[in-house]
Amino acid sequence: MNAEMKTEISFSQLGEAARDAGRLMARASCGEKNAALFAIAAELESATQALQDANSKDLAAGQKAGLDAALLDRLSLTPERIAAMAEGCRQVAALPDPIGEVSEMAYRPSGIQVGKMRVPLGVIGIIYESRPNVTIDAAILCLKSGNATILRGGSEAIHSNLAIAECIKAGLSAAGLPPSAVQVIQTTDRSMVGAMISASDYVDVIVPRGGKGLIERISRDATVPVIKHLDGICHVYLDEAADAQKAYDIALNSKTHRYGVCNAMETLLVHVDRAQELLPPLCQAYQAKGVELRGCERSQAIVDMHAADEVDWQTEYLAPVLSIKVVDNLDAAMAHMAQYSSAHTESIVTENHSAAQRFLREVDSSSVMVNASTRFADGFEFGLGAEIGISTDKLHARGPVGLLGLTSQKWIVLGDGHIRQ
Amino acid sequence: MNAEMKTEISFSQLGEAARDAGRLMARASCGEKNAALFAIAAELESATQALQDANSKDLAAGQKAGLDAALLDRLSLTPERIAAMAEGCRQVAALPDPIGEVSEMAYRPSGIQVGKMRVPLGVIGIIYESRPNVTIDAAILCLKSGNATILRGGSEAIHSNLAIAECIKAGLSAAGLPPSAVQVIQTTDRSMVGAMISASDYVDVIVPRGGKGLIERISRDATVPVIKHLDGICHVYLDEAADAQKAYDIALNSKTHRYGVCNAMETLLVHVDRAQELLPPLCQAYQAKGVELRGCERSQAIVDMHAADEVDWQTEYLAPVLSIKVVDNLDAAMAHMAQYSSAHTESIVTENHSAAQRFLREVDSSSVMVNASTRFADGFEFGLGAEIGISTDKLHARGPVGLLGLTSQKWIVLGDGHIRQ
Repeated sequence: MNAEMKTEISFSQLGEAARDAGRLMARASCGEKNAALFAIAAELESATQALQDANSKDLAAGQKAGLDAALLDRLSLTPERIAAMAEGCRQVAALPDPIGEVSEMAYRPSGIQVGKMRVPLGVIGIIYESRPNVTIDAAILCLKSGNATILRGGSEAIHSNLAIAECIKAGLSAAGLPPSAVQVIQTTDRSMVGAMISASDYVDVIVPRGGKGLIERISRDATVPVIKHLDGICHVYLDEAADAQKAYDIALNSKTHRYGVCNAMETLLVHVDRAQELLPPLCQAYQAKGVELRGCERSQAIVDMHAADEVDWQTEYLAPVLSIKVVDNLDAAMAHMAQYSSAHTESIVTENHSAAQRFLREVDSSSVMVNASTRFADGFEFGLGAEIGISTDKLHARGPVGLLGLTSQKWIVLGDGHIRQ
Repeated sequence: MNAEMKTEISFSQLGEAARDAGRLMARASCGEKNAALFAIAAELESATQALQDANSKDLAAGQKAGLDAALLDRLSLTPERIAAMAEGCRQVAALPDPIGEVSEMAYRPSGIQVGKMRVPLGVIGIIYESRPNVTIDAAILCLKSGNATILRGGSEAIHSNLAIAECIKAGLSAAGLPPSAVQVIQTTDRSMVGAMISASDYVDVIVPRGGKGLIERISRDATVPVIKHLDGICHVYLDEAADAQKAYDIALNSKTHRYGVCNAMETLLVHVDRAQELLPPLCQAYQAKGVELRGCERSQAIVDMHAADEVDWQTEYLAPVLSIKVVDNLDAAMAHMAQYSSAHTESIVTENHSAAQRFLREVDSSSVMVNASTRFADGFEFGLGAEIGISTDKLHARGPVGLLGLTSQKWIVLGDGHIRQ
């Protein structure tokens, strides 16, 4: 038996176990699922020492392998982080259970009653980097939404992830739910990823979490559907009718609240008739915070800054760099966004009702805002209670994805002996 | 320049035109879209002779190529069929416009107001067999839902499809909408299909319409997401608490109302304590209609019929053949469905409330019914007003797909200068 066959066989075993567990999870009651979440929280807390011991193996191997300080930090499980993971379980338990919700039941002319029932997707594959807390975050959202999960974390976190998996399995068992509802792949063998993303008999959807490279690779090779999050090239447009103070606050917050996040502004667009007034104080504030400015010719004529080129408009800096463009009007602003935006989040600052309405309707991004910072594009800020990721796809889910994004709706029909004539 | 490159270039031209037209369609008003639908209806009616002339070229070529009578019938455009196409346009005009609908607007603790707006998917690629009426059916649903469409019909219908495309373009122009919102691929070159299903820069979703072979081929090769409809292995379960008359009516209607349709029953499951009573009259009725019966051992002991084997439980007959199995209880019935159903449509006949509730909750199919014929699983019967297809996928849309299945929702945020703290 060659290595490839071995992987295939062992993934089918995982897949079959997940498929079977998924059926049981789909009918689990809200009470059972919450009991499991509370039990997992208790297991994590009582296993704090064991989790740290497992984690120190990963940390030691990571240091030996020369991981940089940022990666080691993300890999590390402190008592505070373990407590936060347990708290996360209790927060998810407090969220309403979406499964089984019946909506839109209505009588049809034939006499049957037709509506929809919310159901889990089935089996969700999560592929992520070496952050052990993602093991818990992803597992508990899938659990609450009645799905089974197969988790494949970065190989540097394997001992930590397996220790966390033990807590999850114990919690599931304590609540009478199948322990294989959450499975962590036990090997760091990369071919398991390949098997998982093409196992459409067992896996209903893949959610990759991590850097753009990982997500692009998964999306390219997967035959199972992927809920993916690619670029965040977000824009703020200061309209002709912008309130100066709101323009200042929103443009500053959207760029400088945090630099390395997908919902940070990367390009500022300013109406030509307001640029002379709005840009100087804003640019002064950016420069005071160390933001490098790159502008079009008209921006450069107002404030001393580097020249922006074609590549700038296409770049998600994720850094204290901002490109600035003066535009003639709302249409020019929206045309720039249509060309360069990654369809993540765009915001207009305006007091003009018609401009706001046009912007909301016509801008084709997953989050479209009026007089608000792009930094609000986030599952928690939107009230989802939790977030498995942000989708830049159009199908199924757009923008922040919470519990509902891990569900679908089936049709239900109630008759009383009704037949088609 | 080799042939492959030529195709790629010409598909990008189509794709770019569709992308641009899609932006305009997304913001088109309900009135403009309806005006286009009425104008297309009028164009079809006044072009009846030209459509028949184009169609006779296809029919002549088809006869020469030896197409069978059923294919030639599906290919043919009679004055009645052209009138029905025009009527279809007027019916879609009468449907409510889903685009721009705002829902769930609510204030968040931060002070921003967050909700959702329904938006088109963008560009939809339709791949179908040689049925010219699909050209109109698909194009007008995409038009009403604010999408641009690229249509690739079977090569045997090329003249008919191009003639229909002229009517659509004239109707779009008359309403001031971009004629390239609906494009029919002008060549029968098969490599265009390959280019379309991998053109994720231009095409947001592919909807294949046709036989299982076509759909499997497209799904396997596509990198663009596919809304697909595969098998319909539908079950009816006559429960211990079934009403005998309802059981008879529903089991008979589900199988014999039409044989060649995806929502016809293929396997009948009967509770062991009711089989002796329910099977004989039902089987007599089936046999009177010429339905071949294949049963498990317990069924054969009650009524004389062929033996069913493992393959029967896995088969979508699409023909007057029915497999019958006697089961011990509701759990056994649901276990059989979990193993063999294609997750299309299943129905239980029962007067027992708890059995009905368990069936509705636990059966994982796109349509789950109580005391109703499986033949009701249909977009028109469900009140969608129209149907682009039936999805056997779980992501995005399950079951009959109408206008809403061609849309998505973006997030909208209203602030008043709000920033993240």
